[in-house]
Amino acid sequence: MEFTKIAVDVFGGDRAPDVVLQGCELALEELPEIELHLCGKAEVVDPFASTHPRCVAHHASEVIEMGEHPASAVRQKKDSSIVVGCRLVKENTCGGFFSAGSTGACLAAATLVIGRVKGVKRPALGIILPSYNSPTLFLDVGANAEVKSSNLLQFGQMGGAYAKAIMGIDQPKVGLLNIGEEDTKGTPLIQEAHLLMSKNLPSFVGNCEPAQLTKGDFDVVVTDGYTGNIALKTIEGSASMIFKYLKDALLSNTKSKIGAALVKPELAKLKDKLNPDVFGGSPLIGVAGVCVIGHGSSNAEAVKNGIKVTAQTIQADLPKVLAKAVSVSSIHHEG
Amino acid sequence: MEFTKIAVDVFGGDRAPDVVLQGCELALEELPEIELHLCGKAEVVDPFASTHPRCVAHHASEVIEMGEHPASAVRQKKDSSIVVGCRLVKENTCGGFFSAGSTGACLAAATLVIGRVKGVKRPALGIILPSYNSPTLFLDVGANAEVKSSNLLQFGQMGGAYAKAIMGIDQPKVGLLNIGEEDTKGTPLIQEAHLLMSKNLPSFVGNCEPAQLTKGDFDVVVTDGYTGNIALKTIEGSASMIFKYLKDALLSNTKSKIGAALVKPELAKLKDKLNPDVFGGSPLIGVAGVCVIGHGSSNAEAVKNGIKVTAQTIQADLPKVLAKAVSVSSIHHEG
Repeated sequence: MEFTKIAVDVFGGDRAPDVVLQGCELALEELPEIELHLCGKAEVVDPFASTHPRCVAHHASEVIEMGEHPASAVRQKKDSSIVVGCRLVKENTCGGFFSAGSTGACLAAATLVIGRVKGVKRPALGIILPSYNSPTLFLDVGANAEVKSSNLLQFGQMGGAYAKAIMGIDQPKVGLLNIGEEDTKGTPLIQEAHLLMSKNLPSFVGNCEPAQLTKGDFDVVVTDGYTGNIALKTIEGSASMIFKYLKDALLSNTKSKIGAALVKPELAKLKDKLNPDVFGGSPLIGVAGVCVIGHGSSNAEAVKNGIKVTAQTIQADLPKVLAKAVSVSSIHHEG
Repeated sequence: MEFTKIAVDVFGGDRAPDVVLQGCELALEELPEIELHLCGKAEVVDPFASTHPRCVAHHASEVIEMGEHPASAVRQKKDSSIVVGCRLVKENTCGGFFSAGSTGACLAAATLVIGRVKGVKRPALGIILPSYNSPTLFLDVGANAEVKSSNLLQFGQMGGAYAKAIMGIDQPKVGLLNIGEEDTKGTPLIQEAHLLMSKNLPSFVGNCEPAQLTKGDFDVVVTDGYTGNIALKTIEGSASMIFKYLKDALLSNTKSKIGAALVKPELAKLKDKLNPDVFGGSPLIGVAGVCVIGHGSSNAEAVKNGIKVTAQTIQADLPKVLAKAVSVSSIHHEG
């Protein structure tokens, strides 16, 4: 049996390296088919690799911190755990890379070191939203602050292919995030993208209003990385605001306090359901190798889920699926 | 005593005219200083005006429906309740206009019929968000899909003046919505706006991340109308998703059902607190007359609150306050 080989950034995330190694331990227990390639400082990765099965240590003396400028950090810190991990993918030692470190640095390293899938103009960062009716793949949530309409079309092609291959949705419905249903709504760019997607993407079903995004009316929703990042963080911020208000409301008097004690277990489950950690990270879609980025606040369970998603994505051979999806289109746009 | 004269669109909103007239009734009871100028079909406004104090009927034979193209509807339906209401403001019969009808049509009518405050390049649609720490004025949430950095600067000037005059915040903190704290984040336009606001707006305190928007770290947050509308609708959609999940969670077993019954009154209060209706509508900021737009789903209480906000805004003489705020700036940008 051929192992699924995954490079792991042991020094990525707010609670690295301890929490990452705990996550690796959980993943090794649950997934007998994986082999982990641990990237990080020798004094940390060596002892772990020597005491765990299916582990290989790769030394990386540097760490890219959360606040650093992504592209310069990637260029300067060539021996960082993120760059070393991406290099393992580039050299085909590993099929994919998982990191809970700086999203910007992972994006930069993946693009610079691994490169793009043939035909893909711009890779996009996706996230699986815990929308009410069914999960929704939302992209781009931060890789490209500015895009052209042809990029949005490709995001739709790639997103649809991802939903089919990884999420198991046979005929994914693809939408375009916009402020209204009508094709005359939004900026000129969005109107142009609407037209382009209507003509060239059979799975395109129209504009998705923000309320539909969290309702789960679409399987895939595309937007530019600026708007997507704003929307994603607004969802997280709104959830956090509502839970704060909820706590105040439940503790406001004796009767509600008794009720709160009774509903507490269900509320804890709900908080977990809405926690982005549980979904195991954001796939970088369009890079010529699998790359999954976990939330900086990931706990061990989230790291395990991230590694699991990385393994599934390698097994589905996402880069090949994407190459096929973007080659279907015969239209040509520069950019 | 001089009455505060308010034009009311009796045919605006999902439940017009009944709910609007109920709201007028509540407003007349609560606010002895107002005089309402009711715009709508004769058979509806005449009987109400003749049986209520401080009411004047203005006939408007047409109604602009929610789905119509705003600018064309305003041009074609010159005898619609929205156009008639705006004309009353233009002619100085009324100090302001309130409608729970089509936001787009109100924007178009206000701009075309009433016009802009001297010096204001683009009026913006604002909303007061129920953010956790304190309410936040958020603009533009839909008047301008595309803006220049100089427009964002003006939104900041006008927003700060509004917060001081209407919300009673002595030294409002103004922020720029962005995907990160650093001034290198976001699109080139946003980076340019950051620089412009840093230099020319003393109340500017920096970028506001979406999570801070709902936390209430800023008194005023500016963005373009496309992003603002996406963010606003994302907040509403997230709240709706969470309340749906919450309902499922609370009804999932016997113990949680008992708890749910005990916390129900507090949850109902919370839902009200997060309901945009309660805030009484969105001010259109930068028009040469007061214009407040209520939510289409407004109930009678919301209509009353909208009329109340309109009255307060007239009493504070918002257009004059705004004219002063934008004239402070000595910089000149085209657009």
